[in-house]
Amino acid sequence: MTEPAPVVTAAVLVIGDEILSGRTKDKNIGTIADYCTALGIDLREVRIVPDVEEEIVAALNALRARWDYVFTTGGIGPTHDDITADAVAKAFGVGISHDDRAVAMLRERFPNPADLNEARLRMARIPHGADLVDNPISKAPGFRIGNVIVMAGVPSIMQAMFDAVAPTLRTGVKMLSTSIDSGGLPEGAYGSALATVQKAHPGTVIGSYPSFDGQRFRNQIVVRARDPELLETAKVAVEAMLVELHANRPS
Amino acid sequence: MTEPAPVVTAAVLVIGDEILSGRTKDKNIGTIADYCTALGIDLREVRIVPDVEEEIVAALNALRARWDYVFTTGGIGPTHDDITADAVAKAFGVGISHDDRAVAMLRERFPNPADLNEARLRMARIPHGADLVDNPISKAPGFRIGNVIVMAGVPSIMQAMFDAVAPTLRTGVKMLSTSIDSGGLPEGAYGSALATVQKAHPGTVIGSYPSFDGQRFRNQIVVRARDPELLETAKVAVEAMLVELHANRPS
Repeated sequence: MTEPAPVVTAAVLVIGDEILSGRTKDKNIGTIADYCTALGIDLREVRIVPDVEEEIVAALNALRARWDYVFTTGGIGPTHDDITADAVAKAFGVGISHDDRAVAMLRERFPNPADLNEARLRMARIPHGADLVDNPISKAPGFRIGNVIVMAGVPSIMQAMFDAVAPTLRTGVKMLSTSIDSGGLPEGAYGSALATVQKAHPGTVIGSYPSFDGQRFRNQIVVRARDPELLETAKVAVEAMLVELHANRPS
Repeated sequence: MTEPAPVVTAAVLVIGDEILSGRTKDKNIGTIADYCTALGIDLREVRIVPDVEEEIVAALNALRARWDYVFTTGGIGPTHDDITADAVAKAFGVGISHDDRAVAMLRERFPNPADLNEARLRMARIPHGADLVDNPISKAPGFRIGNVIVMAGVPSIMQAMFDAVAPTLRTGVKMLSTSIDSGGLPEGAYGSALATVQKAHPGTVIGSYPSFDGQRFRNQIVVRARDPELLETAKVAVEAMLVELHANRPS
């Protein structure tokens, strides 16, 4: 018996009207998903909500109660539609005000006091009790309060913030995965056999993922497990299944 | 006074482990967001959940109670990890079985009875009371039950299904939008002025969206409104604001 693997979970909360209107195509969800998988954190849920305070508060409270970490993206800039910091403070029931550390960071970018105007100082409004997350690109920091990590929506800045916070995150045993091309065999030809393989291999999660290039389907069978031996055993079983089905295929 | 615009709302529920693991990068959310905006439907919320029945049921019931339509993507193929149809039946508290109409559609694609095996017939399992949604690409249909439209995860098939269902959807007054480049002016330079413009133009939603190419930021100010006159008036105000700020900019 393998010991139960420690599992660390997370959710992503994307905040922004521009994603819901289709104007901006989100790239952060896929990036955070990749980062979490690489770190050994299970991303379990994603929500996208508009720039509406009560929606942000409700989603954040639902997610932070349920998962180990919540990563938010968007809404921490200097304009009136950037309301994430206030919403996070409200969700946690804490105050919010200009944070001296954050103001100092902004001063690095805007050494001339006239440039550090009211709008830019909005970016130094941080919920009380939060730790700052460095932003090497444009200085205005993200922050972390409780299990919630608040990051920018601009992908390169989000990535830099994630990199800054990643070493501080608790992680679990990594989910390993391997991908097996069906070799032209359609999903319908191996669906029943694959279900049998899945049943015979507890501790693994087997999925089948078709893609379509406009002409034909290609199918990838993906086996995932935290235990490398379970992964290998299930992979061998999937490959044996494919060999058998190909051999019996009407030519 | 303009009359209150009829608003029709929607949510998207993306179903699939492969999106949460990062293996597959979702393209459907952005596409559905664009379609909804073009049709005059307000996309208000998106959730992504794994291939876990209770997660799908809980998310679906939360979303369908709250929004006019719910579009789901993913999990309607022939393999064991495709559990969306069963989860939808459970959410609605109805039975599910092989649907004669769906079986007939699959027969078009698999005329040889030996090819229409158990796995493929899974794709004809439809919750009782649902209407089918045509799939011109690979025949296996989507379906619609109550206010929920269940579609494939493969983007080209999802798009074909959305096209099939779109003419039957109730739509509201379209949200119009216009985008104004800040002409190099940073967000921090116009944040306060833009907040004033927003306050002076109720009935519009004004957002500011930075993008970063690795070297410099570009900012787009987007004005949205259902009323074309309100849109135009707010746009003119934003442009006047930019002209004034550029004129006063230290050279």
